[in-house]
Amino acid sequence: MDLRAYLSVSKRRKAVEENIGVDLSNIGKYSISEELASSKNCENMIGTIQVPLGIAGPLKVQFCNAESKFKVQSCYIPLATTEGALVASVARGCKAITLSGGATVVSQKIGITRAPVFVVENILDGKKFVDWVYANMSQLKKIVESSSSHLHLLAVKPTSMGRNVYLRFRFDSEDAMGMNMATIAVTKVAEFIKGKIQVRCVAVSGNMCVDKKPNFLNFITGRGYSVSAEALIPQKIVNSVLKTNISDIVEVGQRKLMYGSLLSGSIGANAHFANILAATFISTGQDVAHVGECCVGITTVETLKGNLYVSVYLPDLVVGTVGGGTALETQKEALSIMGIVGGNSGRNARKLAEIIGGAILAGEVSLLASLAEGSLASAHQKLGRGAK
Amino acid sequence: MDLRAYLSVSKRRKAVEENIGVDLSNIGKYSISEELASSKNCENMIGTIQVPLGIAGPLKVQFCNAESKFKVQSCYIPLATTEGALVASVARGCKAITLSGGATVVSQKIGITRAPVFVVENILDGKKFVDWVYANMSQLKKIVESSSSHLHLLAVKPTSMGRNVYLRFRFDSEDAMGMNMATIAVTKVAEFIKGKIQVRCVAVSGNMCVDKKPNFLNFITGRGYSVSAEALIPQKIVNSVLKTNISDIVEVGQRKLMYGSLLSGSIGANAHFANILAATFISTGQDVAHVGECCVGITTVETLKGNLYVSVYLPDLVVGTVGGGTALETQKEALSIMGIVGGNSGRNARKLAEIIGGAILAGEVSLLASLAEGSLASAHQKLGRGAK
Amino acid sequence: MDLRAYLSVSKRRKAVEENIGVDLSNIGKYSISEELASSKNCENMIGTIQVPLGIAGPLKVQFCNAESKFKVQSCYIPLATTEGALVASVARGCKAITLSGGATVVSQKIGITRAPVFVVENILDGKKFVDWVYANMSQLKKIVESSSSHLHLLAVKPTSMGRNVYLRFRFDSEDAMGMNMATIAVTKVAEFIKGKIQVRCVAVSGNMCVDKKPNFLNFITGRGYSVSAEALIPQKIVNSVLKTNISDIVEVGQRKLMYGSLLSGSIGANAHFANILAATFISTGQDVAHVGECCVGITTVETLKGNLYVSVYLPDLVVGTVGGGTALETQKEALSIMGIVGGNSGRNARKLAEIIGGAILAGEVSLLASLAEGSLASAHQKLGRGAK
Amino acid sequence: MDLRAYLSVSKRRKAVEENIGVDLSNIGKYSISEELASSKNCENMIGTIQVPLGIAGPLKVQFCNAESKFKVQSCYIPLATTEGALVASVARGCKAITLSGGATVVSQKIGITRAPVFVVENILDGKKFVDWVYANMSQLKKIVESSSSHLHLLAVKPTSMGRNVYLRFRFDSEDAMGMNMATIAVTKVAEFIKGKIQVRCVAVSGNMCVDKKPNFLNFITGRGYSVSAEALIPQKIVNSVLKTNISDIVEVGQRKLMYGSLLSGSIGANAHFANILAATFISTGQDVAHVGECCVGITTVETLKGNLYVSVYLPDLVVGTVGGGTALETQKEALSIMGIVGGNSGRNARKLAEIIGGAILAGEVSLLASLAEGSLASAHQKLGRGAK
Repeated sequence: MDLRAYLSVSKRRKAVEENIGVDLSNIGKYSISEELASSKNCENMIGTIQVPLGIAGPLKVQFCNAESKFKVQSCYIPLATTEGALVASVARGCKAITLSGGATVVSQKIGITRAPVFVVENILDGKKFVDWVYANMSQLKKIVESSSSHLHLLAVKPTSMGRNVYLRFRFDSEDAMGMNMATIAVTKVAEFIKGKIQVRCVAVSGNMCVDKKPNFLNFITGRGYSVSAEALIPQKIVNSVLKTNISDIVEVGQRKLMYGSLLSGSIGANAHFANILAATFISTGQDVAHVGECCVGITTVETLKGNLYVSVYLPDLVVGTVGGGTALETQKEALSIMGIVGGNSGRNARKLAEIIGGAILAGEVSLLASLAEGSLASAHQKLGRGAK
Repeated sequence: MDLRAYLSVSKRRKAVEENIGVDLSNIGKYSISEELASSKNCENMIGTIQVPLGIAGPLKVQFCNAESKFKVQSCYIPLATTEGALVASVARGCKAITLSGGATVVSQKIGITRAPVFVVENILDGKKFVDWVYANMSQLKKIVESSSSHLHLLAVKPTSMGRNVYLRFRFDSEDAMGMNMATIAVTKVAEFIKGKIQVRCVAVSGNMCVDKKPNFLNFITGRGYSVSAEALIPQKIVNSVLKTNISDIVEVGQRKLMYGSLLSGSIGANAHFANILAATFISTGQDVAHVGECCVGITTVETLKGNLYVSVYLPDLVVGTVGGGTALETQKEALSIMGIVGGNSGRNARKLAEIIGGAILAGEVSLLASLAEGSLASAHQKLGRGAK
Repeated sequence: MDLRAYLSVSKRRKAVEENIGVDLSNIGKYSISEELASSKNCENMIGTIQVPLGIAGPLKVQFCNAESKFKVQSCYIPLATTEGALVASVARGCKAITLSGGATVVSQKIGITRAPVFVVENILDGKKFVDWVYANMSQLKKIVESSSSHLHLLAVKPTSMGRNVYLRFRFDSEDAMGMNMATIAVTKVAEFIKGKIQVRCVAVSGNMCVDKKPNFLNFITGRGYSVSAEALIPQKIVNSVLKTNISDIVEVGQRKLMYGSLLSGSIGANAHFANILAATFISTGQDVAHVGECCVGITTVETLKGNLYVSVYLPDLVVGTVGGGTALETQKEALSIMGIVGGNSGRNARKLAEIIGGAILAGEVSLLASLAEGSLASAHQKLGRGAK
Repeated sequence: MDLRAYLSVSKRRKAVEENIGVDLSNIGKYSISEELASSKNCENMIGTIQVPLGIAGPLKVQFCNAESKFKVQSCYIPLATTEGALVASVARGCKAITLSGGATVVSQKIGITRAPVFVVENILDGKKFVDWVYANMSQLKKIVESSSSHLHLLAVKPTSMGRNVYLRFRFDSEDAMGMNMATIAVTKVAEFIKGKIQVRCVAVSGNMCVDKKPNFLNFITGRGYSVSAEALIPQKIVNSVLKTNISDIVEVGQRKLMYGSLLSGSIGANAHFANILAATFISTGQDVAHVGECCVGITTVETLKGNLYVSVYLPDLVVGTVGGGTALETQKEALSIMGIVGGNSGRNARKLAEIIGGAILAGEVSLLASLAEGSLASAHQKLGRGAK
């Protein structure tokens, strides 16, 4: 069966059904544009997978960047998941935070990165190459920016080791996640370099980007957006909504998040960033493989003047509201719930990052409380197994 | 808007549409069982997200466990993704490998893990507690196995630090991924311990499990399945199918995978395990957040007797064919393409892990070749941007 | 100047003096046995470096292994260092701990490790090789133990990846650190394997040992001895001896040790294990390069019933009281201060590990207090710069 | 026995001898200045430890910084060690490299760092604090530089997480290692900040410095000096001096350094940087605890035009030629062998870093060759055990 031989989604699906002897009728029922999806998002398309979409919120968020003017807003969070209890858990966290006055979210644009690796004859040639790059930066910037009107070169960071030189390009890609634009731009730059000074690019991605792999470089120096969120939850809301008390949550924070993460050699220390990332990434058409690098932040928990203070720190949050799967109908509708469909001079992507930061804060608050209370198993039994 | 107040998916969706002022009509078009999804997989459900499903293959795989009797089989791989070029890339890798005689895959069951953290008075009490655990192992095993007929205790590994004791329970959960079963069982064990010797469990998960966070503990000691896959690709297939040559791929392997991953402080060294994991996890109803921990293996590339030898190593692959989202109609149909729907004494989950291992090998072969050829940008431009 | 041509230490030193035009008269003044040092410890010997030796203590320690019968003992700690303030700092920690009733120390023998790497044709051959190793374990044990009467094979842990198989041998080497004995034994085993089944050893050390490099494998699974030490210090001693208060020390523990170590991607989380390790390793003739792997543990600080609870966790402490530099006169005298000269069925090496654990606890207590008080700079100014 | 009560080294030593019942006569025989050592380097001094000093070389080095004008020079390397075979091994590496035309060494001053941690009320206050720091940078620079004429502020890198703000100060400390100067300067800065804007410094070191702990922050962003060294060794010298062949060394490089280091979760990938660091740090009066952070670089090995190309990369090399133990007589004599005693506008410390880089290259070449040849065990048997 040559899958590429079939010219339509339905013919290809039919061929799979007949060839393998299976019924793919639900995969065949979809409403998103087949033309769009099969030409831009997915080769050899045979239909779609339907992922249940739940909604959590409202989550009161104070957005603290200059453009948002510290506006406070109620947000709803679309979560596509098959893991019972997840939406309920985030929803509970949203409730506790909102009743406490809301989450404060701060973000910083780091930018998308791409780091080609070049090979030189020896370390002195590597030094000369790096010097040349610095001397020709404005030219490289021109080449980058000629490749797309939405891509802006922010910086280039070189690393030389032996005969290898890595140039980590960092870009502002406005509302796009920007990985493809970055790859195209860097390819042009590599061609220019080869033409000018005969330095050969071994691979346009040299694993110093770092794209879709958990790593300390992104964790320490950032990628995409660096997002922080926090909430201050009074004792009585900890009791009434979270069904536990501050000191128990703080102890979980210490013995699980801090000691447990250090002992297990984790990058960062959190409870379940990955859950909220996966669910929001699927719902909003992000590249879900980015969960691998984005899930590495830190959650802090402490008592502050009799209240529970909780913060989350996400140094590597790679998202966009244009490109990738964001134009698919269901994904676009999910983005519309947050009011951030399409491009908006970078504001929409930033807001998506910030809302995800707030949602992750809600998720951490709720799971830590559940662990402190000792109710994790029963919640999963009730919700994940369909008991009423 | 109190989302929990709405008793049906459609009423809740309608409320969201009216309250926020958006149109969620595509989210409202789905064919999967609302009753199942809303009761077991997703609270506050308002519909589904449709993720394009492509198919790659055939991939010839030799399954090398005792039960499979080293059977060779042609596999098709369902990939749910919005990232243009991914399916085409995996498909190309499948072609190169299959023409070369196929992939060999070996797996080892490590088992799902859950590690509660207990607090003791001091390190001597910690030592006594650990001694007690060893002395009462058969009793603990009984408690675990009374919680589910599909859960079998394989081992308990204690770690004591200061006043903290972590017990990392490792289970065989047959065809289920098993995280929820493990949590329930460990909760019972913790209750038993408290009743018997008054040692308090601070949290049923002490971040030594480690669930859904990238970490060196799982990478080094394994979790779920440890899977290895390899292929030996002759020079002429490297030229004709992969459009490049062996030495260029080997150089990319060295300067990108090895040096780049070491310099960036990555866990392991690979090109894009996360892409294939995300796409197969979505298509088959896995818990997609597991991408965060599962994407940490190593790819090796070398010349062997004039051929290209490529291997992938995945020490932490957490999957199942029952539970989670595996029963949803589209996900079940995707599983049916691989012939592994439902429970089968652990054989189906193992086979899923092994097929994913093979698919990841195909993905690595193709991306490394693309980087060696210098065609990554153009492939993405052509496929990801809809050019004819 | 061919340094090997000179047949005595003094002639070689003289040659260096004349050839380079320097005066090495202090290097030439030493009392240790030239014959011993130049034949066993140091090739091309030209003299010695004199490292100032200070002494801290008494430190009251409860040794909690079966053999020591939980004996409490006052220990003095010999510290060879050129870093002003270090001895004073450890001494202050000893005083605070001893006045509080002493340190409790628990240790576990993990054993010295050596992990050769073998190359096989493919992963199936790797699997067969590992099966063969398990099947022939008693034979391998015999070979190991025929190489030295002081070396006992505890376990072999295989790791297969692609065409590579690592066998991590773990040994009890009694009172010797044991690295050389282990290398010799593993070399014999590798020769046996080659003779029997033609599997080639690429390197007798495959960096999975791991010797003298900071790594998560040793941190997580241990090497040498795993040592824990703790103390409970009442508020009034924190005030009078440590010149600060419990809550400030606990805050330093949190914001420095926990958050700072996580943010910087450290292996473990401590203040200055390396200082005490370096000073005790030099004084007692250890292989000082082991500081690189041994300095990776965790310090915990918490309030417990109104007292300050502090613990240290050292999963990778590699020491010995025979072999290496332990027989040199000054080093032997330093060991004699602790009453652990030479071999004693493993008891002396264990006790050295335990005393170092206690000394590290003292060092952590004192430095954390100094940071909490804000006196680090002034202490260094006073002691490190010679002010009266 | 109150050790502080004794007013002279000899009285204190005598007290220890009598109190414990031991003979410390060799510890009591030393030639270094007791007054200097006991007032600046070591409290409670009772004598010295004598560490055998060997010498390796000549090593031909091309120093490639602007000041050295690419001068080529023959260097001798003083190695203080008790590990038999180490000096011989480095010496062999020096010979192979020198016969091949010498090592090329490139270095970059990163600077010594100190990172205090401050606590703020919330993340918005943290943002304001960081803004204030940037706005007041010239004032902070003035405070730093008023604390010492040898300390120059290069940069401040802030990291905010939750209520915590870390300011990583990076300094040029000329020929001093500089840690104490940096601590004093940062203490003054923290006092100024407290006086000006009431932001409280929790600890003058917040473990983001990172001093003396292995970590990815220093590995990735550097500390002290970043040093690279390389050599190109012809086949015939590999055969004649290193007793093996290029392909075997390259295979060891791959299966041990690359795969083994990745599998063990090492920071970087090398054979034994720590050995040469420990030996040169002891001989030249460095703070030996820095071995813990400095030993984390990468060694690369490849075939280049029929030759063996080897490089080492040390991103975190913290050394000085003034301060610490550098003024002690034996240490100063060791520095004189390299012609770098005392201060010289930063040139001496840089040269020390570069020579150590070259010595580490020699050590790697020799050990990798020894592993490739299979002679590691026999070398240690012959040299480490005193056989003629």
